[in-house]
Amino acid sequence: MADPRFFKSAQSYTLKEIAEIINAEPAPGADLSHRLKDVAPLDTATNAELSFLDNIKYKAQFQSTGAGACIVHPDAAQAAPPGVHLLLSRHPYKAYALAAQAFYPQEKPDAEISPFAHIHPSATIGKGATIEAGVVIGEGVDIGEDCWVEANTVIAANVEIGAFCRIGANATLSHCIIGHHTRLYPGVCIGQDGFGFAIDPKGHVKVPQLGRVLIGNGVEIGANTTIDRGAGPDTVIGDGTWIDNMVQIGHNVKIGRGCIIVSQTGISGSTILEDFVAIGGQVGIAGHLRIGMGARIAAKSGIMRDVPAGEEQMGYPALPIKQFMKQVALLKRLIKKDKNT
Amino acid sequence: MADPRFFKSAQSYTLKEIAEIINAEPAPGADLSHRLKDVAPLDTATNAELSFLDNIKYKAQFQSTGAGACIVHPDAAQAAPPGVHLLLSRHPYKAYALAAQAFYPQEKPDAEISPFAHIHPSATIGKGATIEAGVVIGEGVDIGEDCWVEANTVIAANVEIGAFCRIGANATLSHCIIGHHTRLYPGVCIGQDGFGFAIDPKGHVKVPQLGRVLIGNGVEIGANTTIDRGAGPDTVIGDGTWIDNMVQIGHNVKIGRGCIIVSQTGISGSTILEDFVAIGGQVGIAGHLRIGMGARIAAKSGIMRDVPAGEEQMGYPALPIKQFMKQVALLKRLIKKDKNT
Amino acid sequence: MADPRFFKSAQSYTLKEIAEIINAEPAPGADLSHRLKDVAPLDTATNAELSFLDNIKYKAQFQSTGAGACIVHPDAAQAAPPGVHLLLSRHPYKAYALAAQAFYPQEKPDAEISPFAHIHPSATIGKGATIEAGVVIGEGVDIGEDCWVEANTVIAANVEIGAFCRIGANATLSHCIIGHHTRLYPGVCIGQDGFGFAIDPKGHVKVPQLGRVLIGNGVEIGANTTIDRGAGPDTVIGDGTWIDNMVQIGHNVKIGRGCIIVSQTGISGSTILEDFVAIGGQVGIAGHLRIGMGARIAAKSGIMRDVPAGEEQMGYPALPIKQFMKQVALLKRLIKKDKNT
Repeated sequence: MADPRFFKSAQSYTLKEIAEIINAEPAPGADLSHRLKDVAPLDTATNAELSFLDNIKYKAQFQSTGAGACIVHPDAAQAAPPGVHLLLSRHPYKAYALAAQAFYPQEKPDAEISPFAHIHPSATIGKGATIEAGVVIGEGVDIGEDCWVEANTVIAANVEIGAFCRIGANATLSHCIIGHHTRLYPGVCIGQDGFGFAIDPKGHVKVPQLGRVLIGNGVEIGANTTIDRGAGPDTVIGDGTWIDNMVQIGHNVKIGRGCIIVSQTGISGSTILEDFVAIGGQVGIAGHLRIGMGARIAAKSGIMRDVPAGEEQMGYPALPIKQFMKQVALLKRLIKKDKNT
Repeated sequence: MADPRFFKSAQSYTLKEIAEIINAEPAPGADLSHRLKDVAPLDTATNAELSFLDNIKYKAQFQSTGAGACIVHPDAAQAAPPGVHLLLSRHPYKAYALAAQAFYPQEKPDAEISPFAHIHPSATIGKGATIEAGVVIGEGVDIGEDCWVEANTVIAANVEIGAFCRIGANATLSHCIIGHHTRLYPGVCIGQDGFGFAIDPKGHVKVPQLGRVLIGNGVEIGANTTIDRGAGPDTVIGDGTWIDNMVQIGHNVKIGRGCIIVSQTGISGSTILEDFVAIGGQVGIAGHLRIGMGARIAAKSGIMRDVPAGEEQMGYPALPIKQFMKQVALLKRLIKKDKNT
Repeated sequence: MADPRFFKSAQSYTLKEIAEIINAEPAPGADLSHRLKDVAPLDTATNAELSFLDNIKYKAQFQSTGAGACIVHPDAAQAAPPGVHLLLSRHPYKAYALAAQAFYPQEKPDAEISPFAHIHPSATIGKGATIEAGVVIGEGVDIGEDCWVEANTVIAANVEIGAFCRIGANATLSHCIIGHHTRLYPGVCIGQDGFGFAIDPKGHVKVPQLGRVLIGNGVEIGANTTIDRGAGPDTVIGDGTWIDNMVQIGHNVKIGRGCIIVSQTGISGSTILEDFVAIGGQVGIAGHLRIGMGARIAAKSGIMRDVPAGEEQMGYPALPIKQFMKQVALLKRLIKKDKNT
């Protein structure tokens, strides 16, 4: 079970109740009245806990689990150990997510504005918002209802934040407009000047960065990620896009809806990601490119050209993934045959 | 036009005035009395706005722009749509930078030391400086005239900062000496111990890091960038060098004047960059190397040997760029011919 | 000598005293009564200073050094310039580390809890601890004896920190338990939610992250590094492991004892590093892998499979290092022969 110092389980559920919440089908013989108090990983779960199998790598843990109930794909059900009540779902990870949300609803502190926050008198703080100690809020800032701004975060003049947002500690925000239900993690830097200058041996000439950062609804932006504001156009992050830790987003970048960007990736200035693009970790994307809808880029790739919609690429420079895998296999064969080494 | 909540245009100019400020030549027929109130991107600019064409990728936007005036290279002038007053420059981006600076001079708050900053009584704060709320300034710190230290930044004992510097919010500075007109962005960490230890299975032995970070004049250092102090020698960043977000600079690194280092690049300990070196994003440079004057390293390269002055390299491990491009082309041909796949 | 504004040498030593402290053997003829006041790099050291030669690249500096004494490997002793008193050690860098520690013992401020820190009344602060201005400490936090928490750091509810730890400025800690003698550098983010969600076109479904971050004794974690808490299992960092700046550690990662992880490396979720693994800079390791004891991964590698104990790998995708070097050499020869370019 989760450490009760950090997490409080809201309530217990019967197997029947959970099955309905997560839209899963109890396997034949499952005891619908079995009571579950918590979720837990396969290897530590006990009889009153619900676990899940999503990655076949963990099959051995599944076969020896002590969990009272388990969410599995129908195809994996026959490997279940005796005595585990199964909930069948074609999307076991999503089903587990919904179950875990039922046990652990999103935490939200009591609405309170710390007397140790420094809030400009012209700023607007919505009803139900929590502003922690050490937060600095500038002139004209507008923070929506039920927002939670964690300690020591700095929000510069005229920033707008919608309702139900959570801004992590030690974050720095300027020149940005943020939608509803969006979460920024600790240490993010949003809205600073892009890296814009004209190279000149007598001293590079700064280009004033006159755009903003527009962040949609339901966005997540990971710890210590940096998003520069536009140079003239805006930098845009679409609804429902999830960005991991330490990602760099350059000025004027436009990211569509529902994209996934894993940590330490960098997207150079003016590049466009259409909707539902998925980018692995440590990818670099050059500037002024278009990454088509639903394209998938493998971790550590270097993208120097437009990527067509739906295509999967990998490599440095990146290739369609089948070609990259061919190249890897070919090189292995060539080394094996090579007499010179 | 720029969002007036975040940016205030200082004044309007005639085409003639702008031409003089940016040292550009009005094209034949341009109306020198045409009045410009702002700068704007090609696709949104209106008759009272000035735009520019620097990257030929945006030619279509140039041909349909509604801008009243546009800065272009003389070679691109013939593609201009009718009715746009042209300003000809061989360096359109630099010319635009100067124009934008004229409309939007660098912002600077009224000099004010927040009563909510924590400043050690022995620290010196120059005339005209602004110190925002939550800033913590240690013993013996010396901050020059007209500096601007943003909220919640921490400056440890005896740090020296020259005049006209701007230090972003939530930054952490120690063991460093900074010149004039230098700008550090939010979240930077400057002067912490380098990664110095002797490996020992019984517990790695820490090597006290006894050097400093010396940062020159007119330097820019991007958000969440980390610069470790020297181990004995100093870590040095030369005048006019621009460093982007999330760059890692190891202990004892010496960077010359006028260098450009794009985001997420890492430079390992004791490496030297001579003047005017340009490094793309996500490059890794091993320790104890010398990168010659004016060398250019393409994004994502891994540099394991010294790079001669003026040379352009790419790859992992890096090669002179023509060799790297040959290698890429060769591999493509080999895959195509390959029967085994 | 080190800048006295930033570093204070504790005392002077005779060559004999230093030899004992660092367990080195004075070379024949060395003057055991020679008095040393400081350590210094080879090129700036004077007669009252101790230097060292560890990397043969710096042999020329060794041959012209003005140092009064120098630590060298016995094999390099014959290259010494006349008049330098030599201390012979098979581990000159470790010996230097111990000498430098003798001159510059770890700094520790007077125990003091700033009246400008915001500490929840239910938190426990150990005897001898220093809590600087602007620190925010939540409900139920437990901070051990002689800890030093630097300015503007945020420690969320119920975090536990052992004795003799130092937490840098502007750090953010939540959901973690930290051992003794561990040091976190400025800007670290520890314990935030991992990047856990089920992909869904209607909106990715968040998976509540119910684990913790467990950090051992004698650990170092570099500036702006991010460590996500576990999703259910914990994220674990073993005793004596050193992590550099801007490293990303995903949820559920387990890192053993005595590992070294250089800056900008990313380790994806649920991967295991056994003891004494060494990872270069900018390495990416995929999720759910096992990196065996003592394995060594060269900088910038991309690891997509398990790595056997003791193996050295390099490349993207990574290969055993000899194979990678063969591949590099082979490609160079192929380009040279290639007629098509």
